[in-house]
Amino acid sequence: MRITDILEITVPLEGDVANALVNFRTHTVSLVAVVTDARRGSRPVVGYGFNSIGRFAQGGILRERVIPRLMAAGPGELLNAAGDAFDPVGVLRAAMRDEKPGGHGDRAGAVAAIELACWDVNAKLADEPAYATIARHYGRRPADAVPVYAAGGYYYPEDSTRRLAGELRRYRDQGFAAYKIKIGGAALGDDIARIEAALAIAGPGANLAVDANGRFDFTTAAAYAEALRPYGLRWFEEAGDPLDYDLNARIVSAYGGAVATGENLFSLQDARNLIAFGGMRPGIDIFQMDPGLAYGLDEYVCMLAAMEARGFDRAQAHPHGGHLINLHIATALGLGGCEAYPGVFQPFGGYGPGCVLGDGMVIPSDAPGWGLEEKPELRHALGRLA
Amino acid sequence: MRITDILEITVPLEGDVANALVNFRTHTVSLVAVVTDARRGSRPVVGYGFNSIGRFAQGGILRERVIPRLMAAGPGELLNAAGDAFDPVGVLRAAMRDEKPGGHGDRAGAVAAIELACWDVNAKLADEPAYATIARHYGRRPADAVPVYAAGGYYYPEDSTRRLAGELRRYRDQGFAAYKIKIGGAALGDDIARIEAALAIAGPGANLAVDANGRFDFTTAAAYAEALRPYGLRWFEEAGDPLDYDLNARIVSAYGGAVATGENLFSLQDARNLIAFGGMRPGIDIFQMDPGLAYGLDEYVCMLAAMEARGFDRAQAHPHGGHLINLHIATALGLGGCEAYPGVFQPFGGYGPGCVLGDGMVIPSDAPGWGLEEKPELRHALGRLA
Repeated sequence: MRITDILEITVPLEGDVANALVNFRTHTVSLVAVVTDARRGSRPVVGYGFNSIGRFAQGGILRERVIPRLMAAGPGELLNAAGDAFDPVGVLRAAMRDEKPGGHGDRAGAVAAIELACWDVNAKLADEPAYATIARHYGRRPADAVPVYAAGGYYYPEDSTRRLAGELRRYRDQGFAAYKIKIGGAALGDDIARIEAALAIAGPGANLAVDANGRFDFTTAAAYAEALRPYGLRWFEEAGDPLDYDLNARIVSAYGGAVATGENLFSLQDARNLIAFGGMRPGIDIFQMDPGLAYGLDEYVCMLAAMEARGFDRAQAHPHGGHLINLHIATALGLGGCEAYPGVFQPFGGYGPGCVLGDGMVIPSDAPGWGLEEKPELRHALGRLA
Repeated sequence: MRITDILEITVPLEGDVANALVNFRTHTVSLVAVVTDARRGSRPVVGYGFNSIGRFAQGGILRERVIPRLMAAGPGELLNAAGDAFDPVGVLRAAMRDEKPGGHGDRAGAVAAIELACWDVNAKLADEPAYATIARHYGRRPADAVPVYAAGGYYYPEDSTRRLAGELRRYRDQGFAAYKIKIGGAALGDDIARIEAALAIAGPGANLAVDANGRFDFTTAAAYAEALRPYGLRWFEEAGDPLDYDLNARIVSAYGGAVATGENLFSLQDARNLIAFGGMRPGIDIFQMDPGLAYGLDEYVCMLAAMEARGFDRAQAHPHGGHLINLHIATALGLGGCEAYPGVFQPFGGYGPGCVLGDGMVIPSDAPGWGLEEKPELRHALGRLA
């Protein structure tokens, strides 16, 4: 097998929502296709991937650096020993040729989109869903179903609290039992009103997480921690700058309840620093690193190993993203759960109609690969790519 | 004053050299021009900047994210209160609109190139060299001259040790008195032979630094530390992964002599983590963060403040880069010194003919701004940009 072409397009995210820090109107995603000379029937096997959501498309880095390196690599560099599937370690090594250590930002998403597309190829070659391929590769038994929560609760430009309640009600009607909403984009009192409106639908605090998106200094985080504590929430997410490990450790200590962070750490080394310096507690706190933003699945598996080596459990891993790719990954690797963006971030957010959702659990469909072709919202973008 | 256009081109780096990790043949730089409607005589004032050297051009991020935001910003957002110069804080804020925290990689260079070009505009408006503008802005008296060392000593594909000695001899003839060479791209014994060949020209160990470019694990770093210690070298640079603060602290402790790191930290928060967790010692170790790779000059000044707040001295700051922009910055801010790449990384490496070099010190020319227009090697690229 060899790669005959790698295509990439920039897809805008739909929806006019904002968190505490940024407006997502301008955010984009790189959707890529790795075209191979392998065939299923009369058609070449094509793998699709994308660099998760919440950041930006990486067309420049893909076209100028990553794609030329992969097209120049010999097939032996990219394939497993049997030559019948991509080797993720080889793909990453080729994609990163002549890159220096450190600086894990935009390029980590560019590389991830390609690596994830190679997993889609591998699964399609085996004619099975990606979770099955991934579980076998890493020597695991896939989960029967994965705990899922609906992430949303952004600030709408108008009538934000009422729309928040309506949004969570729709999620509940779809089969979700746990939810996450944004905080930090309003005054503390207004955010508490949002939380109470959300709890009216979510029920116990354990069904509701809140996310500050890295906005707070210690004083503000401590004030929120004080106000949030009585609600016994699912978790308090990204209170401070995601790379400020010292601040995270102080917030963990001040809050007492579960904290969550990691979606803005884009490499194994950054995750190791969070583990070493961030005050995270085995059995309590939540790690949200996202393969699609951080060099892909194999790097993510190394992060899980780093967590486990320091006494953490993979049940504490809940990857950011809320889309089909991370659903397969959470299923394959037995993670604590995954998020879903059923209402926002189309065409990537949420799952396809073949996925079964109910009682707060989700089961991916058995379509080959990630099953992106089954998601109606993605049809237009996949058509543009081909 | 308002920005009428922002231009950017990708410039390849010349030279077929390699360090322990990467070959620089493929490396590129974004050269940008910020065109204003201010005039000096009949011509618009144009500021030039670039994202240092050693990484890659950022055309995609510049065209898709940074430049549109700056062109959409109102002049009030970008200028100082008097409206007669760019405000670097406002420029950074506009350039980063809708960017999330964390992920300080490629975008940090894209933003830096623009911010540095705005400093070139500010200095040209004042009809003075950039070091004078910068020193005044930050309330400092510029240094009369700056200690400089010649960085080079890469691995050439053939006849590497003999060419190394010839290279250092040329630098000495140009007026350099201190040098830096690469290690870690050969076996320890071969690297020691390179060091001894270099010391034959450099003289005492204090005139020679060595740079491993982040290649070593602790065991290898400790073996090198043991072998290097008797030479009393200027510093032992980037022994391990630049973000592995725990490893850095262990290497500092194992080596004893001065270590240097930081050129692959691209944000204030990463620098704060190095200060907090990396074991760096006030008065001894060297910080090499590079404004051109890390959001520009104002972020760099915040890094210096973070160092000083923890008992470090700005004499411990030696920015990576080896080019005119960092020479002006080191002069303006009274840093410990700067590097120069007189032999490699053209057209950006080294200084212009108007700069005075001798006795291991360098003085920037008095050309307005960074003086990039005075550097003959840059003439072609600046012509392409216009």
